Amino acid sequence: MRYLSINGNRLWDTLEVSGRIGKFRETGLQRLALSDEDKAMRDQFVKWCEDAGCSIDIDELGNIFARREGTDSNALPVAIGSHLDTQMCGGKYDGILGVLCGLEVIRVLNDNNIQTKRPIEACVWTNEEGSRFTPPMSASYAYAGLLDVDYVKNSRDLQGKKFGEELARIGYQGTTTVGAHKFDSYFELHIEQGPILDDANEDIAIVVGGYKSYGMRIEFRGETAHVGPTAMSKRKNPLVAACILGEKINEIGWEVAADDGKSTVSCVENWPNLNGTIPEVTQLIIDFRHPNAEIVEVMKTKVEAAIDDAARKSNVEAKVIEIWSFVPNFDVDIIQHLHDTAKAISLKVSEIHSQAGHDAYGISYVAPSGMIFTPCIDGITHNVNERINLDHTIPGANLLLNAVVAYADR
Amino acid sequence: MRYLSINGNRLWDTLEVSGRIGKFRETGLQRLALSDEDKAMRDQFVKWCEDAGCSIDIDELGNIFARREGTDSNALPVAIGSHLDTQMCGGKYDGILGVLCGLEVIRVLNDNNIQTKRPIEACVWTNEEGSRFTPPMSASYAYAGLLDVDYVKNSRDLQGKKFGEELARIGYQGTTTVGAHKFDSYFELHIEQGPILDDANEDIAIVVGGYKSYGMRIEFRGETAHVGPTAMSKRKNPLVAACILGEKINEIGWEVAADDGKSTVSCVENWPNLNGTIPEVTQLIIDFRHPNAEIVEVMKTKVEAAIDDAARKSNVEAKVIEIWSFVPNFDVDIIQHLHDTAKAISLKVSEIHSQAGHDAYGISYVAPSGMIFTPCIDGITHNVNERINLDHTIPGANLLLNAVVAYADR
Repeated sequence: MRYLSINGNRLWDTLEVSGRIGKFRETGLQRLALSDEDKAMRDQFVKWCEDAGCSIDIDELGNIFARREGTDSNALPVAIGSHLDTQMCGGKYDGILGVLCGLEVIRVLNDNNIQTKRPIEACVWTNEEGSRFTPPMSASYAYAGLLDVDYVKNSRDLQGKKFGEELARIGYQGTTTVGAHKFDSYFELHIEQGPILDDANEDIAIVVGGYKSYGMRIEFRGETAHVGPTAMSKRKNPLVAACILGEKINEIGWEVAADDGKSTVSCVENWPNLNGTIPEVTQLIIDFRHPNAEIVEVMKTKVEAAIDDAARKSNVEAKVIEIWSFVPNFDVDIIQHLHDTAKAISLKVSEIHSQAGHDAYGISYVAPSGMIFTPCIDGITHNVNERINLDHTIPGANLLLNAVVAYADR
Repeated sequence: MRYLSINGNRLWDTLEVSGRIGKFRETGLQRLALSDEDKAMRDQFVKWCEDAGCSIDIDELGNIFARREGTDSNALPVAIGSHLDTQMCGGKYDGILGVLCGLEVIRVLNDNNIQTKRPIEACVWTNEEGSRFTPPMSASYAYAGLLDVDYVKNSRDLQGKKFGEELARIGYQGTTTVGAHKFDSYFELHIEQGPILDDANEDIAIVVGGYKSYGMRIEFRGETAHVGPTAMSKRKNPLVAACILGEKINEIGWEVAADDGKSTVSCVENWPNLNGTIPEVTQLIIDFRHPNAEIVEVMKTKVEAAIDDAARKSNVEAKVIEIWSFVPNFDVDIIQHLHDTAKAISLKVSEIHSQAGHDAYGISYVAPSGMIFTPCIDGITHNVNERINLDHTIPGANLLLNAVVAYADR
């Protein structure tokens, strides 16, 4: 078999163009799902794919599939995907690297006039970050039948804008039924978003599993009153409940920190949120995860007790109004194929468990799936200082390229 | 001396008109300072005053002075004032009752063709609530020289809009220098905003002092990172610091609750405030007060220690970016005059300390000032269910009327 190499400079230039669409501060990106910036990046991606000879299919949740045809017109495609949306204060590589490596694979095949047996597709999943619309990875989970399509379309951002309306507004509501665009198999390359590879000075990790994670949106409901004359005993302050819960969530994370468990309060919404008035309603978004799925369930029990305790201490009502959970189901054959390919082209790889959620998590339940991690410097991510080193990224991209081509030709 | 009576039905009708300007839910008001609703209410008030023969003066912070002339053209006016702005989820009487009682005093004098020696003025202070622009009572405190006029003009709401620009936008930026419009004396009638009068079935309390209060805006500054792969030990989560502080603030209030002290977290701003990312910066607005001014200083020391502790535990930076404090200095002669007037017209009064801040607090430092409290049902306030009973309000309004007229004629 002939082994191929990606064009590192072309990949880098492509990343640089992306890094100017939604630029935030000197070095970051703010390209929230279904924003004008997201639209501009999608337009750029579609143009690049069409220039590379691909046909474009878009489903009802805005997931994009750019196809390079194979010799077998009945075969399902081998897909490479990730996301182009970012956090509000995000970096230039999280998700984007995986999508643009998919494009680079197609360009390398064009350069070499290679036609694979199965088609190859570069895919974009909508709203992976979940930073504008919860839950995260909502469009890939809906593709996998794990979330209801209407539920996703009706999710709202902080300004009350609906996912479905914003999707239509930017012109990316396609007609293909969500989930109907089937895959033979699915590969995703992503920056590690942690320090393990960078600390070990290694370039590639094959993802063999993922930390089980939970996300929850909790609502506390109290009663407005004047902060002055209202006695402590007569108060129903939901923000106090949120504070008590937030502190406890942080403690629950520290209890399992030695085993690399963690828990987070990231988001609070408080109404009317004004000086002088005890608020009426406060929402908190929390997240907790652990390498051991059984321990995550123990954490969940503790979190539920902490919610009740915070409500009781503050004399308010509590309700979990949204809950999501994710854990991947990566395919053993694909994991083996990635190892075999790495060995054949003399690339050193390690194995890793993913701590962050990825679109491949959902896809892994409907198509054989695998993931490759490449390093990010100091593990910094979801931050404008997220950086990668091209020399340490090329090996992982070459593994993706050769593994996908071989899998498409099997 | 002849004693006068207010026209209760007319006062009630006037309150009802006001209760439709910025109506919120069935029974409340949302008439934030310098909003379109605030403008509409100001326009209505100015029209009522002009119809009653008053001249209007407006200062550079939008404070309105509606004057009914006296016989002595050189005499300073006896002023009656309060505010027309409300909380976001506020009631129809807080502040408004005091302003409209000032108007009613003028109307009664017109009905009876009485001309007082000193002029009488009905006044409106801008942004008493402080719910849109912190600090509260900013325009009356600036009138008293206790806040800088430019500081107030540059205060911003949550959307970043400036006080000064909003004031100009609604057409209420006058030309009179703030503080130049002097008073002989100042009276303010206000609902108690607590349950004491209502519980005791009493109609009038003369305010002899007020709880010393502090407000603070605290900022915690951390660093964005991914909630998944970032180890607990590497996090700098300012929202955790805010939660730890919020819980502690509530505890500090409970420690003095038996003596009627209290402390509150009312407002939180978190950025970027999105699922999936540890936030970068979190602000918390807190408030604490106590009948004993020395104990408030002890509370302040505890709060400052709690801020440092919360920052240290969360590995973030803390800064107090705004602090305000208020305590009144009511005039002993005016308090005595209110007692004497009540006795002369056979009204039963008690004495009370105010727990909420009022515009009279600031004015009391530049003009002899006094306050009258009337009951609100169950003490409910800063809530759409704030209610008063007209029969239990008329006695206080009659005390105001007769005390002001006698003081203007002394």
